[in-house]
Amino acid sequence: MAGRRDWTRDTLAAGVRAGDKRALARAISLVENGDALAYDLVRDVYPDTGRAYAVGVTGPPGVGKSSLISALVRHVRARDASVGVISVDPSSPFSHGALLGDRIRLADHFLDPEVFIRSMGTRGHLGGLAEATLQAMLVLDAAGKDLLFLETVGAGQSEVEVIGIADTVLLVLMPGSGDSVQALKAGIMEIPDVIAINKMDHPAAKTMLNEVRSILALDHERAWRPPIVLTEATRAENVPELWEKIDEHRAFLEQEGQLEERRRRNLAGEVFAVASGRTKAHLERAVAEDPELRRLLDAVQRRELDPLSAVREIMEKVFKIPAASLAPAPGTGAGDAHGDRADAA
Amino acid sequence: MAGRRDWTRDTLAAGVRAGDKRALARAISLVENGDALAYDLVRDVYPDTGRAYAVGVTGPPGVGKSSLISALVRHVRARDASVGVISVDPSSPFSHGALLGDRIRLADHFLDPEVFIRSMGTRGHLGGLAEATLQAMLVLDAAGKDLLFLETVGAGQSEVEVIGIADTVLLVLMPGSGDSVQALKAGIMEIPDVIAINKMDHPAAKTMLNEVRSILALDHERAWRPPIVLTEATRAENVPELWEKIDEHRAFLEQEGQLEERRRRNLAGEVFAVASGRTKAHLERAVAEDPELRRLLDAVQRRELDPLSAVREIMEKVFKIPAASLAPAPGTGAGDAHGDRADAA
Repeated sequence: MAGRRDWTRDTLAAGVRAGDKRALARAISLVENGDALAYDLVRDVYPDTGRAYAVGVTGPPGVGKSSLISALVRHVRARDASVGVISVDPSSPFSHGALLGDRIRLADHFLDPEVFIRSMGTRGHLGGLAEATLQAMLVLDAAGKDLLFLETVGAGQSEVEVIGIADTVLLVLMPGSGDSVQALKAGIMEIPDVIAINKMDHPAAKTMLNEVRSILALDHERAWRPPIVLTEATRAENVPELWEKIDEHRAFLEQEGQLEERRRRNLAGEVFAVASGRTKAHLERAVAEDPELRRLLDAVQRRELDPLSAVREIMEKVFKIPAASLAPAPGTGAGDAHGDRADAA
Repeated sequence: MAGRRDWTRDTLAAGVRAGDKRALARAISLVENGDALAYDLVRDVYPDTGRAYAVGVTGPPGVGKSSLISALVRHVRARDASVGVISVDPSSPFSHGALLGDRIRLADHFLDPEVFIRSMGTRGHLGGLAEATLQAMLVLDAAGKDLLFLETVGAGQSEVEVIGIADTVLLVLMPGSGDSVQALKAGIMEIPDVIAINKMDHPAAKTMLNEVRSILALDHERAWRPPIVLTEATRAENVPELWEKIDEHRAFLEQEGQLEERRRRNLAGEVFAVASGRTKAHLERAVAEDPELRRLLDAVQRRELDPLSAVREIMEKVFKIPAASLAPAPGTGAGDAHGDRADAA
């Protein structure tokens, strides 16, 4: 196998397909750096993807996502599945290379040739985080990993785009995750496929279980009822049960023919997210580099040019999109007998 | 004053400048509907803006943001300041037109001619939520409101863009907001200017106060130390103290000459966010309407075309951006003696 600096497009693709750890590490570094070789590599190996099953693991910081992934990895390794883990949670122990001894025992995984773990930075990706994680997941998929875990934090738009590639989404909470429970209740957080309430020894764990259960019970339309599992990741407690629920969700998708449909939707969503990220980066660069566009911002600041007019000029200049195609629909405004009534707020 | 269906561009601008409630309601409806008249209106009144002071109020659902805003409005009304409130929190009582009697007494405010309260939908805006809230805030600013409150939920990217227009950002938490505290601790949530811990009667309120205080103490660089106030919005308890802290932050910005600088940065950020939103909408429409672009997505699904190549084709077609200017930087990859070392993950 080639040394670290001798990778060519062909040897790298071969190394990735063979699941060689150095090739995978190199490939994902290239992805992170936005290197042209990464682009070519993923294009080369893309026909070999689509075989891995991807589990997205999300939830607020500090709930034990990494510990739970680590316990799940140990569980599935006992069943001989090969595993890849990508973490894009900046607060994750994975991101700090932390080896927390017996508590997480990541070290075991790092030594296991069938497990590849990698954390990725959340900033500085040319096409946004969605692009970098998508490409990294495709690399691990092409490497023949049976299972992929993708760890993300929080519930913002960029995280939704990252986790959008997952076949099954696992939300991890813990007692004290009141904000997430309220967000689920208010319909602001998307309902995941499986929920783990970690730190089950906490006296408030059962209360939270009941609270989450009653929120989910309000949704009668859903064909798949998201199961909730109490876990204690540090002791691997109920981890087999949690894995069973993830597997049941997979079986559900496969039986109903929904997996293909979900992947179609996910891929289309990812392409759209990546294109959005690229466009945003292009716009950022254009505004930063073009003195004329910067002068527009000054005029906005001096209250001489309103923000939306500045936006129009920027769009015409950067994307050659004529103002007309950006204009809001006319005719619903003044003097329109069909206009909506003015709210008496 | 003209009736609801007889507004012209001129009478609407005059009505907005005069602070007429029907004109304001109509103008914001037009903003929400993406009507061309709203665009013209804001352009007309933009020179009259920049006088209102904008307070962004953010935090997870259920912590009592609306009650606190309501109590703050009562407090500042007693000092004769005129007020506008825009809520983009779908879980807010404002959004449901809820009149919670003595508990919130929004009804008082609705009858007060110097107070204008409006909730806005979070979906379906042509240029995204940032555009709609920016335009609505400018309308209220032009109407001569002294103070504007902008209520948003959560900490995602779109919410950050919405609250990006605020001069002072108030974060509201409550005992049980463990996820937000963890997010602050992990550096995932931006540090606000002022923090209120609402529901101060809760036995865990003081613990949370100490927790948040110790997180903020880690930051030695900040010239402004965000104060934390325990409040009980339903009894208006400590609301004067909270307002004092907001006022102190304003005085701090004004003394240090930072207000102008912050507004410059905020406006530039908003222009960028609106342009991004518009671009995204343009892309969405293009992909939805163009059969050729949809065929690209099918090829991705069949693993014939990798996602990033599809993105490139879409970008070239929709934005006339040549692939070259989107290409990642070459030369940091294989065979490059200056390449970064491959992580031994």
